[in-house]
Amino acid sequence: MTASRRTFASDNWSGIHPSVLAAIVAANDGGDHVPSYGADPVTTEATRLFRRHFGDDAQVFFAFNGTGANVVGLQSLLRPFEAVICADTAHINVDECGAPERHLGSKLIAVPTPDGKLTPALAEAAAVGTGDEHHVQPRVVSITQSTEVGTCYRVEEVEALGRWAHNHGMWLHLDGARLSNAAASLGVGLGAFGADAGVDVLSFGATKNGAMGAEAVVSFRSDEESSLRYIRKQSMQLASKMRFVSAQFAALLSDDLWRTNAAHANGMARRLADGVAVIDGVDVAYPVEANAVFASIPPEVTEALQERYPFYVWDEAAHVVRWMTSFDTTEQDVDDFVAAVDKLTGSHPSPSG
Amino acid sequence: MTASRRTFASDNWSGIHPSVLAAIVAANDGGDHVPSYGADPVTTEATRLFRRHFGDDAQVFFAFNGTGANVVGLQSLLRPFEAVICADTAHINVDECGAPERHLGSKLIAVPTPDGKLTPALAEAAAVGTGDEHHVQPRVVSITQSTEVGTCYRVEEVEALGRWAHNHGMWLHLDGARLSNAAASLGVGLGAFGADAGVDVLSFGATKNGAMGAEAVVSFRSDEESSLRYIRKQSMQLASKMRFVSAQFAALLSDDLWRTNAAHANGMARRLADGVAVIDGVDVAYPVEANAVFASIPPEVTEALQERYPFYVWDEAAHVVRWMTSFDTTEQDVDDFVAAVDKLTGSHPSPSG
Amino acid sequence: MTASRRTFASDNWSGIHPSVLAAIVAANDGGDHVPSYGADPVTTEATRLFRRHFGDDAQVFFAFNGTGANVVGLQSLLRPFEAVICADTAHINVDECGAPERHLGSKLIAVPTPDGKLTPALAEAAAVGTGDEHHVQPRVVSITQSTEVGTCYRVEEVEALGRWAHNHGMWLHLDGARLSNAAASLGVGLGAFGADAGVDVLSFGATKNGAMGAEAVVSFRSDEESSLRYIRKQSMQLASKMRFVSAQFAALLSDDLWRTNAAHANGMARRLADGVAVIDGVDVAYPVEANAVFASIPPEVTEALQERYPFYVWDEAAHVVRWMTSFDTTEQDVDDFVAAVDKLTGSHPSPSG
Amino acid sequence: MTASRRTFASDNWSGIHPSVLAAIVAANDGGDHVPSYGADPVTTEATRLFRRHFGDDAQVFFAFNGTGANVVGLQSLLRPFEAVICADTAHINVDECGAPERHLGSKLIAVPTPDGKLTPALAEAAAVGTGDEHHVQPRVVSITQSTEVGTCYRVEEVEALGRWAHNHGMWLHLDGARLSNAAASLGVGLGAFGADAGVDVLSFGATKNGAMGAEAVVSFRSDEESSLRYIRKQSMQLASKMRFVSAQFAALLSDDLWRTNAAHANGMARRLADGVAVIDGVDVAYPVEANAVFASIPPEVTEALQERYPFYVWDEAAHVVRWMTSFDTTEQDVDDFVAAVDKLTGSHPSPSG
Repeated sequence: MTASRRTFASDNWSGIHPSVLAAIVAANDGGDHVPSYGADPVTTEATRLFRRHFGDDAQVFFAFNGTGANVVGLQSLLRPFEAVICADTAHINVDECGAPERHLGSKLIAVPTPDGKLTPALAEAAAVGTGDEHHVQPRVVSITQSTEVGTCYRVEEVEALGRWAHNHGMWLHLDGARLSNAAASLGVGLGAFGADAGVDVLSFGATKNGAMGAEAVVSFRSDEESSLRYIRKQSMQLASKMRFVSAQFAALLSDDLWRTNAAHANGMARRLADGVAVIDGVDVAYPVEANAVFASIPPEVTEALQERYPFYVWDEAAHVVRWMTSFDTTEQDVDDFVAAVDKLTGSHPSPSG
Repeated sequence: MTASRRTFASDNWSGIHPSVLAAIVAANDGGDHVPSYGADPVTTEATRLFRRHFGDDAQVFFAFNGTGANVVGLQSLLRPFEAVICADTAHINVDECGAPERHLGSKLIAVPTPDGKLTPALAEAAAVGTGDEHHVQPRVVSITQSTEVGTCYRVEEVEALGRWAHNHGMWLHLDGARLSNAAASLGVGLGAFGADAGVDVLSFGATKNGAMGAEAVVSFRSDEESSLRYIRKQSMQLASKMRFVSAQFAALLSDDLWRTNAAHANGMARRLADGVAVIDGVDVAYPVEANAVFASIPPEVTEALQERYPFYVWDEAAHVVRWMTSFDTTEQDVDDFVAAVDKLTGSHPSPSG
Repeated sequence: MTASRRTFASDNWSGIHPSVLAAIVAANDGGDHVPSYGADPVTTEATRLFRRHFGDDAQVFFAFNGTGANVVGLQSLLRPFEAVICADTAHINVDECGAPERHLGSKLIAVPTPDGKLTPALAEAAAVGTGDEHHVQPRVVSITQSTEVGTCYRVEEVEALGRWAHNHGMWLHLDGARLSNAAASLGVGLGAFGADAGVDVLSFGATKNGAMGAEAVVSFRSDEESSLRYIRKQSMQLASKMRFVSAQFAALLSDDLWRTNAAHANGMARRLADGVAVIDGVDVAYPVEANAVFASIPPEVTEALQERYPFYVWDEAAHVVRWMTSFDTTEQDVDDFVAAVDKLTGSHPSPSG
Repeated sequence: MTASRRTFASDNWSGIHPSVLAAIVAANDGGDHVPSYGADPVTTEATRLFRRHFGDDAQVFFAFNGTGANVVGLQSLLRPFEAVICADTAHINVDECGAPERHLGSKLIAVPTPDGKLTPALAEAAAVGTGDEHHVQPRVVSITQSTEVGTCYRVEEVEALGRWAHNHGMWLHLDGARLSNAAASLGVGLGAFGADAGVDVLSFGATKNGAMGAEAVVSFRSDEESSLRYIRKQSMQLASKMRFVSAQFAALLSDDLWRTNAAHANGMARRLADGVAVIDGVDVAYPVEANAVFASIPPEVTEALQERYPFYVWDEAAHVVRWMTSFDTTEQDVDDFVAAVDKLTGSHPSPSG
């Protein structure tokens, strides 16, 4: 087979959505000098759009990448002897090369979950040692929305975690690298996962939803409390020509492009999951609620399929693979892929077949 | 006065050079998915271009901003009990919100200099306490090229520092946020400030020379020795859609756009310095060897001038201000500015005038 | 009941063994000034004694406490993007208030074990992500000897872990807060758990074996490689009047006092375990191989027993408690305690009894 | 010459004062088990004695060494993007192997002073960049009492710094490794340098005043605000057999032994300074206000003198040496030393002599 133009490897294998690129180009128009580090009109406008979603008290700090946004946001919430409770599948726990431990100095308390989602009961069980100086002090609950296994927290599930955290003197952090996908999937606004739900700080990701590279830390505490300005700068996440980061957000948050892109990607995942669900030998592993499909397939199918369609193996032992869709995935892409899975699986019938 | 379209505040107030923007657009063309995190053809090409300048042994790691590139590069050279000798004016010492101390865990030994430039003699005097466990161990000499005060190290000056460092079991780091300006000013290639000059790791900046946001760490040690891949990721400086960072470098390093842009900016600074040098009450403070002009002017002139042309005061007490030129500064911009300085200074004659 | 003079709470509730105290007093005799920071004859002698056990290549660095010794030793072995594989029960993982993450910047990969002991197979399963920049790089295997649940690694078990670690480009670290107890239990010398067994760095604890407060980092790498001198000082673990730390080691390592004390404590744990094993309602939870007994007992017994004999609950949910013996625990102490357990348990018969 | 039994190298070359050693021995008497980590009667008593000096609101945390006490105390006052203003001669700046930068993550802003003492004017000049995210934010003024050059802050000088710090939203930290010497010299109580003087956190050193190894962090903020319990533990400064640290403080703070020892050491320095002041070729470099004498002497005298009396050269270039006295320095020691200086200096007349 020849390689496909579009893959199911990751939503960060996509390029830039045309409207986002146009916004970057427009921000460069005219050649005027503008103040650096965010004191420019594009950043002001992008911030205004964020506040339309998250409320006027939202403090917004743009950053370069998801790891940066997570570390910066978390750092505003805790000190090194305090700990973060998260799912063991959390991006901060497994995919950031230890950046959280390194930069926070804090321990992550990683909790196994059936579906990538924390619950108050799981957090409660993990929050041990409070008041004991020999033990790290649980201080932040961090959740990912949508989760790393493609599931979504319902609004009331986030609210329950917010209440639990606040009742225990803790903060709720949300890694929203794919928050748009969750909001689109649940049919709610982005603000549904802000202060109203009890979230104290969140990372909002644009990169995986059609941007070139743009992430934001949204905090519902005052600047003075959070000191996020200084934390961002010291954490090497302050862009000098900020307007070109801001323009990406402005494009996505205008005309609900964020939702259009995310809903499309979600729909493609749904279509993919529906397509493979009926294939013998393929078992979808988690509820498909965002833009990811996890499935167990025969390992020899994986190998043959990857020649044409790069994607990642999620769990080597269990033969579970991950297929991500993106804003630019087409129905044809999905249908071709499903057909390829079908063909390859059929040519490798199970012994009992 | 009305505000000028172009200012002398900083070279990061400029936008994107058209060729750089075109390269970003081109990298998005077609909509193909490409591997993230640098395993893409654009990054391969940009790396090839770097090696044309710095040699085949150069290891190149793209990063988001200058602070990130400096911290990542330095981190590959030292451990927390080891120290960095730098000029007290160094960007790492005064303009990065303590990021080096924070992320390296190391002390910066800041040395006063007459012109922003370290020398072996200055480094020697600062390198005390070797072998004494109570004292940080000097391990890296870090220089900025061109310096924060707009001067340039001659090639042989860098070589002398390289020899001194290596003779003392130390490394030489170069913060090249404006390396292009220095190379253009001295009429040499970028590679003149690489391994041949004894530099072990350098930051190469594109942002201030017409890019949107692109910096690189160039190391002359093997990957295995430097571990820069892991350091970059853990330091939150790894871009997922890397090709759009790489494309910026590819544009600047092709057809010597880096030199054209830098030489132009340098020329505008020269023109500006020449223009103000003859004005009574204006004293140029440092040799103008790159794209910065420092001058002492009457404080009331500063205030009036800033209304139309934003720029920064460098030394409040000494009334020294900084004027930066950029790739997009025009002769008209400079001449208008000089005329404004002349007019404002003339209207504020010194008591003895 | 009235409180007992001796408890089973922890071996650090004991005071100082008379010979250790005598050595401290002797080190003060005469009132001569001696060089600080370890350049004194007592430290020289203590180091000589360590080398008699661990070989002439052993580099010895005295430290204040176990957390300090562990963090200092580990820091000589890895960089922040590298990780430590340890048992989830490891002291470094649960009892040091996150000091390892804080000071190493590294992730601990905590592995569940049936008996507190890692194996090559467990390490192998945990050592994932090698070569992947998104993932921390496993670099050190850290084991505790004797373990936190009172079991001991056989010499060949340590050797197997050393071989596995070295074959995978990793180091083997040993937390020997109770190494004396393990060596005494297994009837081997302390050196059996040094370089010959493949251990690269170990913490050797004296405090829990009759000292006042004295721990050592023993490294089998050269000073130049490990830089432990600087790491210790920067880690706030360098004593100025070092001779009084050293004297404690000199006392314990002369005349095999370390073994006498440890063997006695082990014997008392054995006696205690044997005593309670026959009591209905008491189940000893782990093999009793050092100076700790873990047992599940009815929660109401725990409460009543703690009034007279302070001790810690190990696992609230499983009603497992921990009883530690010490160098100064007497047979009478143990017999009285067993009698108390017997009496209290008898008065709380199980429903089926 | 043969080596002297007592030297002028450092007050940490002395042993333990008999009363301190007796207190350690007494704390071990009886062999009872007592709770570890400070929940013991000796620690309670030592804390009570501290509060008699520093007031009932003083929170007291014992630590192992001065570096530890300084880092722990400072850590309770600032975050990594915040900076510490200190004299360039400060122990935290030059003698702790970079531990403050390493563990605080913060920059030290080191200020040259004529006499080792900061003033509000010096602090004011150093406190730049407030509100600028590119710059570290000054947050703590740290002073050493008595200073590293043997001078003392008057009470009103400390008060002035406290007022200045608090008026600028900053804290005042005091490194009191030799606070006893200062209080004895000025004829005031220890509490004169506590909350009443505007000090927020101080390190109180016992080691250099006759203890074996005992330092304390005294904070005037509530436990909840400072979190010092957790900071101390995570910083590896929590002793398990705490009572033996506490006993040293109890001994020094009872019967004013702290003052007796310090006053004696101060008197010996005075005697030494008076003795050498009349010797040609010897110039005392700083006011002798505590237990240190700094003097410039001919370098050949230094060398000959060190053969018998070890001491440190303070400033190689200026031929300035440091002579420390201690609680156990005798008049005879001083007189013999002065005679030796006299003799050696006389035998090396200056060319013009």
